[in-house]
Amino acid sequence: MGFELYYSPKPPTDGQLVITGSEARHIARVIRHKVGDVIGVTDGAGAEYEVKLAEVKADRVAGRVLSTQSGAREPKHRVTIAQAVLKGDRLAQVCEQATELGVSRIIPVQTARTVGRLSAARLARLRAVSLAALKSSSRTVLPGIDAAIELGGLLKANNEFDQTLVAYEEETGPGLEAVLKRDAGSVLIVIGPEGGFEPSEIDALKTAGAVSFSLGPRRLRAETAAVAVAAMTLGLLGDLG
Amino acid sequence: MGFELYYSPKPPTDGQLVITGSEARHIARVIRHKVGDVIGVTDGAGAEYEVKLAEVKADRVAGRVLSTQSGAREPKHRVTIAQAVLKGDRLAQVCEQATELGVSRIIPVQTARTVGRLSAARLARLRAVSLAALKSSSRTVLPGIDAAIELGGLLKANNEFDQTLVAYEEETGPGLEAVLKRDAGSVLIVIGPEGGFEPSEIDALKTAGAVSFSLGPRRLRAETAAVAVAAMTLGLLGDLG
Repeated sequence: MGFELYYSPKPPTDGQLVITGSEARHIARVIRHKVGDVIGVTDGAGAEYEVKLAEVKADRVAGRVLSTQSGAREPKHRVTIAQAVLKGDRLAQVCEQATELGVSRIIPVQTARTVGRLSAARLARLRAVSLAALKSSSRTVLPGIDAAIELGGLLKANNEFDQTLVAYEEETGPGLEAVLKRDAGSVLIVIGPEGGFEPSEIDALKTAGAVSFSLGPRRLRAETAAVAVAAMTLGLLGDLG
Repeated sequence: MGFELYYSPKPPTDGQLVITGSEARHIARVIRHKVGDVIGVTDGAGAEYEVKLAEVKADRVAGRVLSTQSGAREPKHRVTIAQAVLKGDRLAQVCEQATELGVSRIIPVQTARTVGRLSAARLARLRAVSLAALKSSSRTVLPGIDAAIELGGLLKANNEFDQTLVAYEEETGPGLEAVLKRDAGSVLIVIGPEGGFEPSEIDALKTAGAVSFSLGPRRLRAETAAVAVAAMTLGLLGDLG
């Protein structure tokens, strides 16, 4: 299905899917679907339903499930971006574009040079942006967006991943292609804040097993680095075409 | 030089560089450089000067050139993005991020499903955004941003490039890595509008020698596709780390 997906986390009952809340209102009032229309719905956990609508009301949309798929259009590799918290809407841009590209999880990180905190309201907004991107990009698995953690906490989570990489602007050695393991099922890639990492943070990351790589001699804004890294990683792993 | 560059297109005379206009005001009043400070200046055409300031006034900043470099931090390959005109600020986002990443030229294109026109005022704004990105990313060659042309005009310019590729959302075949020639000195990559290309446009591009590639099964917004393609192309050519 190439069209926009709708989102409803509730599973079907006896082959009937019921959508309520704002998504029902959107389907009925904004898109103005009619009884008999066939729509695509995902639960954001991998399931995708083709649903023939039997009832279209602003508070309740329901229909029969014609077919079910699992994990359609999802990448084969799990790419997690640990992004230092950025000012303003920049972290939302990262969450939006990373979701479209196929990133599995985003971990906002507080580092020494991070400016600002990630409030509960900002975190909720990041998750809303990511959900909108899931729907527009026809993904079926909603990326997890963690609450922000300190770099020390990230170092402890590090061994959940087959490989941990860090984009370091002082690195003059290998690029991403040279360090990325093609057989890693899951990779964590750490991207710094606007002001970069402190050398002690890079040391701590390396001690925890991270491998640093260079994005070349030009200075990239953090959000450009994050999107470039997501695209290059998924591309090199064969998950972007 | 890792710091932000200043921009002044005028060449030095007898080893003295003079900066006037808004850039002089920025250096004197915003950054508040002092006599004796050493700054980096690029002419946007490849030259980069290390300048020791001897005069700092809001309308005139001048100093002695300590050293000159050419083409520092520039990619070895010329990557041109032909991007269908997008609504609102989305084309500005493409110009900003493509400049940071190292794209050489951006050609806005009017296609069948393009919404809106690229006015002279919008084009001027794209160039201003690209110039700001040149300075923040420490590039020394300002990407050319053409006035918008029709797709037919682009097809005629096509043979200026060693290879022409088009990201096509209906393509189910090869990805970028499979089609990109590593020995191409210059590559033109065409990215469609929000609504995609019409099949007749893809046919015309292929007849003109373009090779289509897939960005995978997820739907990317046009600006995400453009930035992903710029990053993946420069990465695969060895120009991004």
